[in-house]
Amino acid sequence: MKKIIDAVETVVDQALDGMVVAYPEYLVRVAQTSVLARANPKEAGKVGIVSGGGSGHEPAHGGYVGFGMLDAAVAGEVFTSPTPDQVYAGIKAADHGAGVLLVVKNYTGDVMNFDIARELADADGIRTEVVLVNDDVAVQDSLYTTGRRGIAGTVFVHKIAGAAAEEGLDLASVKAVGDAVVANVASMGFALTSCTVPANGKPTFELGDQEMEMGIGIHGEPGIERVPMMSAKDVTARLFHRLVDELSLTSGEPIAAMVNSMGATPQLELAIMTAHLGQLARDGGLVLERVLMGEFMTSLEMAGASLTLLRLDEERARQLRARADTPALRIVGH
Amino acid sequence: MKKIIDAVETVVDQALDGMVVAYPEYLVRVAQTSVLARANPKEAGKVGIVSGGGSGHEPAHGGYVGFGMLDAAVAGEVFTSPTPDQVYAGIKAADHGAGVLLVVKNYTGDVMNFDIARELADADGIRTEVVLVNDDVAVQDSLYTTGRRGIAGTVFVHKIAGAAAEEGLDLASVKAVGDAVVANVASMGFALTSCTVPANGKPTFELGDQEMEMGIGIHGEPGIERVPMMSAKDVTARLFHRLVDELSLTSGEPIAAMVNSMGATPQLELAIMTAHLGQLARDGGLVLERVLMGEFMTSLEMAGASLTLLRLDEERARQLRARADTPALRIVGH
Repeated sequence: MKKIIDAVETVVDQALDGMVVAYPEYLVRVAQTSVLARANPKEAGKVGIVSGGGSGHEPAHGGYVGFGMLDAAVAGEVFTSPTPDQVYAGIKAADHGAGVLLVVKNYTGDVMNFDIARELADADGIRTEVVLVNDDVAVQDSLYTTGRRGIAGTVFVHKIAGAAAEEGLDLASVKAVGDAVVANVASMGFALTSCTVPANGKPTFELGDQEMEMGIGIHGEPGIERVPMMSAKDVTARLFHRLVDELSLTSGEPIAAMVNSMGATPQLELAIMTAHLGQLARDGGLVLERVLMGEFMTSLEMAGASLTLLRLDEERARQLRARADTPALRIVGH
Repeated sequence: MKKIIDAVETVVDQALDGMVVAYPEYLVRVAQTSVLARANPKEAGKVGIVSGGGSGHEPAHGGYVGFGMLDAAVAGEVFTSPTPDQVYAGIKAADHGAGVLLVVKNYTGDVMNFDIARELADADGIRTEVVLVNDDVAVQDSLYTTGRRGIAGTVFVHKIAGAAAEEGLDLASVKAVGDAVVANVASMGFALTSCTVPANGKPTFELGDQEMEMGIGIHGEPGIERVPMMSAKDVTARLFHRLVDELSLTSGEPIAAMVNSMGATPQLELAIMTAHLGQLARDGGLVLERVLMGEFMTSLEMAGASLTLLRLDEERARQLRARADTPALRIVGH
């Protein structure tokens, strides 16, 4: 295992400190917790938004804490759900008196621990709601999940529900906006290589020199099938058509897309996929209103990528365009 | 070779198209060239800034085209200098009548081809100046260079000279600002793995399971020495102290820093390095005014990182803080 670390036990703790060194104008770490919260919290009255989950998916989720997205992010150990008390610390940091929305990726451990945290919040009089993200169309159930997994589409939930919260919508309305994103977003990914969880010290799985794994999860969970290496054109088309089918997208509809690196994929390769995405959208008559290209929901140093499509309506398009100012996503408005 | 590509011959051409699909509000591709230019060019009177070089270092340099940084970026093939006619096309795209500054990383091919392009510009009455970046303190001469190499520090030149150009400074003054950055910036990197140039099909070099290469270049050129794997703390300290010595930084001085991934390094590991950077700066009495952490000057899918330190004065600190709005670097002002 070749990693730039000091000890496997301290990886997440040190990285959280590093985030604050890198982004002091955005982030503070809540003392004695694995919670990153806004350095300049919004005044009273805004619905708070909290997300989180296992570490190893950076910039998710601490990178999305800031104006227009999250109020706090809770980090578990690598690929391990944060404990309920950590999640509750995040809820408290995000609470401005108008309730807190939890954006949870659908993994059994996350669902359970965020639920227990909600009970703790309830006992203290903090209202919470949950948006459960399950955008990964690859598999129905998996190693860590009942139902579909939550992956990169989660970032669109952060962005759009985050914009709704900044607009001053109430908790039920912000939840409704988030749920509507979930109902209209789909993702699927593939891997060229595995990744190595520091505490395990060796790759989670092995792939041959000419193999790729379609439908991979963000923790190296198995996908649909192993296939021979495909061209950029073919793999992008396969993902695109699968997602278009899933969302029943039809010609003329406006969409947003995310071309997400799993961690080690060069930006040059993401850009080639994005060129194909542009052509596929044109061929299908879809109006590609915005593309996010880069590292948004990674899996440590895994090589590979995921594609996410989101159906837009006028409201979601506006909320996607709205200003966001976070370490990992800054939308300045054009 | 496992890469998300279609054919080695079309990698750069397709990736340039993909950049425009991803960032249509920022970038246009100049027809029949490998030049990305601003989609909304500044009105007459601003000094233009052009950078470029071989591809494979994304987001350098197309990702830095936009308000407050570059006017155009010229891409060569992977790890290959752009030809003089391509560079000249970039100069023409960036010319608003006030002359054009070329920011050139110190590699023999780049220096030669940018020089020939300057002659072409001169013949057409476009004034140009050059800032030659040689921030890599690791080696004096190398495979592709006479003198020190230009690496990640180049991005600070883009940012600060870019701010000076937006302020309306004239060509000689913008060049002087850029030269002053070069005189006050130093970088050094290391690699845990090699990278594979698509046209070669196999890794440029091999490193053992417990080895790292200190002082690596951004094309896999040899560094200073191969050393056993070091901890995050030790490698960050080694780079930091080497750069502090090089710049003769003394207690109380304000600095900026860049913790740059070579491509495949997880953000979690960069954040650990950044935590150490924060501690090292405090221990040394240096005032860390801004940190850039992420992928800024990569080497395809190489694992490893580089550290850059920049001495600030009041002017440079202000120009570094100034608004920038590009695909890869957005500074919104806090």
